[in-house]
Amino acid sequence: MEVVKPIEFLGDRIRIIDQRKLPSKLEYIEITRHEEMVEAIKTLAIRGAPLLGIASAYGVIIDIIRADENTPKENLKALFEKAYNDIYHSRPTAYNLFWALSEMKKVFEENIDKDINTLKEELKRKAIEIHEEDRKLCEKIGENGVKLIEDMGLVKKGGRRLNILTHCNTGALATGGIGTALAVIYKAFEKGYVNEVFVDETRPLLQGARLTTWELLQAGIPTVLNTDNMAGVLMQQQKIDFVIVGADRIAMNGDTANKIGTYTLAILARYHNIPFFVAAPSTTFDPNINTGAEIPIEYRKPEEVKSVLGCKIAPEEVKAYNPAFDITPSKLISAFITEKGVIFPPFQKNIKEILGL
Amino acid sequence: MEVVKPIEFLGDRIRIIDQRKLPSKLEYIEITRHEEMVEAIKTLAIRGAPLLGIASAYGVIIDIIRADENTPKENLKALFEKAYNDIYHSRPTAYNLFWALSEMKKVFEENIDKDINTLKEELKRKAIEIHEEDRKLCEKIGENGVKLIEDMGLVKKGGRRLNILTHCNTGALATGGIGTALAVIYKAFEKGYVNEVFVDETRPLLQGARLTTWELLQAGIPTVLNTDNMAGVLMQQQKIDFVIVGADRIAMNGDTANKIGTYTLAILARYHNIPFFVAAPSTTFDPNINTGAEIPIEYRKPEEVKSVLGCKIAPEEVKAYNPAFDITPSKLISAFITEKGVIFPPFQKNIKEILGL
Repeated sequence: MEVVKPIEFLGDRIRIIDQRKLPSKLEYIEITRHEEMVEAIKTLAIRGAPLLGIASAYGVIIDIIRADENTPKENLKALFEKAYNDIYHSRPTAYNLFWALSEMKKVFEENIDKDINTLKEELKRKAIEIHEEDRKLCEKIGENGVKLIEDMGLVKKGGRRLNILTHCNTGALATGGIGTALAVIYKAFEKGYVNEVFVDETRPLLQGARLTTWELLQAGIPTVLNTDNMAGVLMQQQKIDFVIVGADRIAMNGDTANKIGTYTLAILARYHNIPFFVAAPSTTFDPNINTGAEIPIEYRKPEEVKSVLGCKIAPEEVKAYNPAFDITPSKLISAFITEKGVIFPPFQKNIKEILGL
Repeated sequence: MEVVKPIEFLGDRIRIIDQRKLPSKLEYIEITRHEEMVEAIKTLAIRGAPLLGIASAYGVIIDIIRADENTPKENLKALFEKAYNDIYHSRPTAYNLFWALSEMKKVFEENIDKDINTLKEELKRKAIEIHEEDRKLCEKIGENGVKLIEDMGLVKKGGRRLNILTHCNTGALATGGIGTALAVIYKAFEKGYVNEVFVDETRPLLQGARLTTWELLQAGIPTVLNTDNMAGVLMQQQKIDFVIVGADRIAMNGDTANKIGTYTLAILARYHNIPFFVAAPSTTFDPNINTGAEIPIEYRKPEEVKSVLGCKIAPEEVKAYNPAFDITPSKLISAFITEKGVIFPPFQKNIKEILGL
C-alpha cells in the first residue's frame, strides 16, 4: 500500500510535511538544525506519537551530522546534549519521543570515542533503523488488528461490512509506515471488511477532519466526517461496529493517554457495548509508569480552543480549558493491538508478559 | 437582571439580532415579511426553541399587520395560510414553533370575521402575550431550578461553590427572557452558588462558544470554554457538579430532543454519577408524541461540519454526517425543570400530572 511520507531523511537534512497546512496545502519544511525540529514539534507541524519518536531520532543528531570533521569531541558532546534536552522538553506526553532519544543516546555514548565519521554513520544508521522499524511495526499492528477482528467474530461471513469509528490521526501522517489504528483500518479495507470509516473531527486542532479524512480518501476508503459530539448518536443508531484509536503513552496497568476526547469515546463505547481497541507499538508502553495518574498531561494555549484554524470563535476575554490528552482507564479498553500481539485483560499481567517488559 | 433582547416587536416590523454574527459583531435584522423570518430561522440568524416560538408568533402575522386596511378577507386568509405553512416547514424539531403557530391560528380564526383593525390588534396582543409569557416562564424556570439544587443538597452551606456544565445556548439569546438552562445558572449565580460555568463549544455551529460565553460574560459570570470532547475529562477530574441543558422537544415519556451532543453528555453524566437536568418550558413537551423515536430529527448540510464559520477544515470530497439534534432517553435524565415545577421520575406518570397534559 502506497502511503504518504511525513518525514524523510535526506542524508544532511530532514524533510517533513507541514501538517498544519493539510489538507488545503501539501507543503514541506526542510530541517537542518535541531531547533527547527523542536519548533516543528511544538507547533504540531509534525505530530503523532510514533512519528515524534522518528523525528526525535533524526532531530537529535542533525547538528552532529552537519558538524565539521574537525569538531572537538567536547563540542560534539555539547551539541548532542543541547539537542537531546531541547527535544526532550518539546512535548511531555508521547512516550515514543523519550524512548527514541534514549536509544540515540546509547548509540552516541557507544561511539563518541571513535572517529567522527564512524560516529556520524552509527547515529544515522540507528535513526534510519528506528524509522524502518516503525514502518514494520505498523504493518504488524495492522495484521494483528485484522486477525483480532476476525477472531472476535466481528467480520460476519456474508454479512454486512464493518463501520469503524476513529479519533485524531493515527495513520501514515503519524508514523513511519501505515499507522497504528489506521493500519488496522487499511489492512481491514484490503481484505474487504470495511463499509465506512467515521472520523471524529478531533477539536481543537482537527487532526481527524484535516489529516485522517485526507489520508483515508487518498487510499480510496469510504470516509464520513463527524463532529466529536456526534459519536454518541452514531453508536445509538448502531452505525458503529468498533472504535479504534492510537495512544501517546500507556501505563503498565493499561491506562492510556491519548488525544483529548478518547476517554469520552471509551465511555460511550462501553455504554453501547461496542469494542474499544487501542493500537500502538510496544514503544508506547512506559515501563516506568504504573498507572495513568502518573502520566504527565500537556496543557496547551487557550487560543487553540478559542479559535479554529486562526479564526476566532469566542469572545476575547473568555477563559478556555485545553488539555491535549486525556487518560482512559484500562477497564474501558477491550484490547491493545501491538506489533508483538494482541493484549487482552487482565492487562496488569498480560502487558508484561506479551511485551516482555 | 438585564439581559440582551434577541427579538423586539416594533409595531409594524420585527427586529432580531443576527446571531450568526455574534460574538464578533452585534448586528440586527429588520423583518417586514414572513419570508424574511423563514430565512432567518432556516439560516439560524434566530435560533433556540423558545425563541423560535416567539419568532413564529410574530412572523406568522407580520404580513397581515402590514396589509392594507381594505384587503379582502380572502386575501388575509391566504396571507395567514402562506405564512403559517412556510414557517411550519422552516425547521422540524423544536416543538415551541408548532405550538406558537397553533396558538396564533386559534386567534386568527376567532377574529377573521371581525373588522381588520380588531383582527390586527388581537393578533398583536396574542403574539406579545406569547413573548411576555415566555419571559415569565424563564424567571419561573430559573427559580424552580435554584430550588431544586438547594433541595438536592447540591449547595453545601459553607462549602465550595458549584461548577456547572452546559451545552449549546439556552439563555436570553434563545428565549424571550433569561433563558431555560441559563436561567437556572443566572438565578444560582445571583444567590452566590456559582463558581464557574463550563461551556461546551457545541460544534458544528458553535452556539456555546459564540453565544453562551458572550451572554454569561456580559452577566459577569466566571465562564470557561471547552471543546465538546473535553466533557468526559472535566467530569473525570471532578470539576462538574451538575449538567444542565435545554430541550427542543420532549416526548410524553421524557425522551428529549436537544442539540447534537446532548445524548453523549447524558451518558457521561450517568457514568460519573453527576445529576443531568433538562430545563424547558411546558410548551416544549409534545402531547402528541409518546417516545423519542417519534420525534423528527433535522439533518443539516454537510458543509456545516466540513467548515467552521466559513473556513474549510476538511477535504472537499469527504462525506459528512450532520444531525442537528439527538434524542436523550429519559432514563438518563435526573429531572426536568419547568415553569410549572420540577418533574422527577417516573416521567411517564409525572409529566402528565405536573403539566396537566
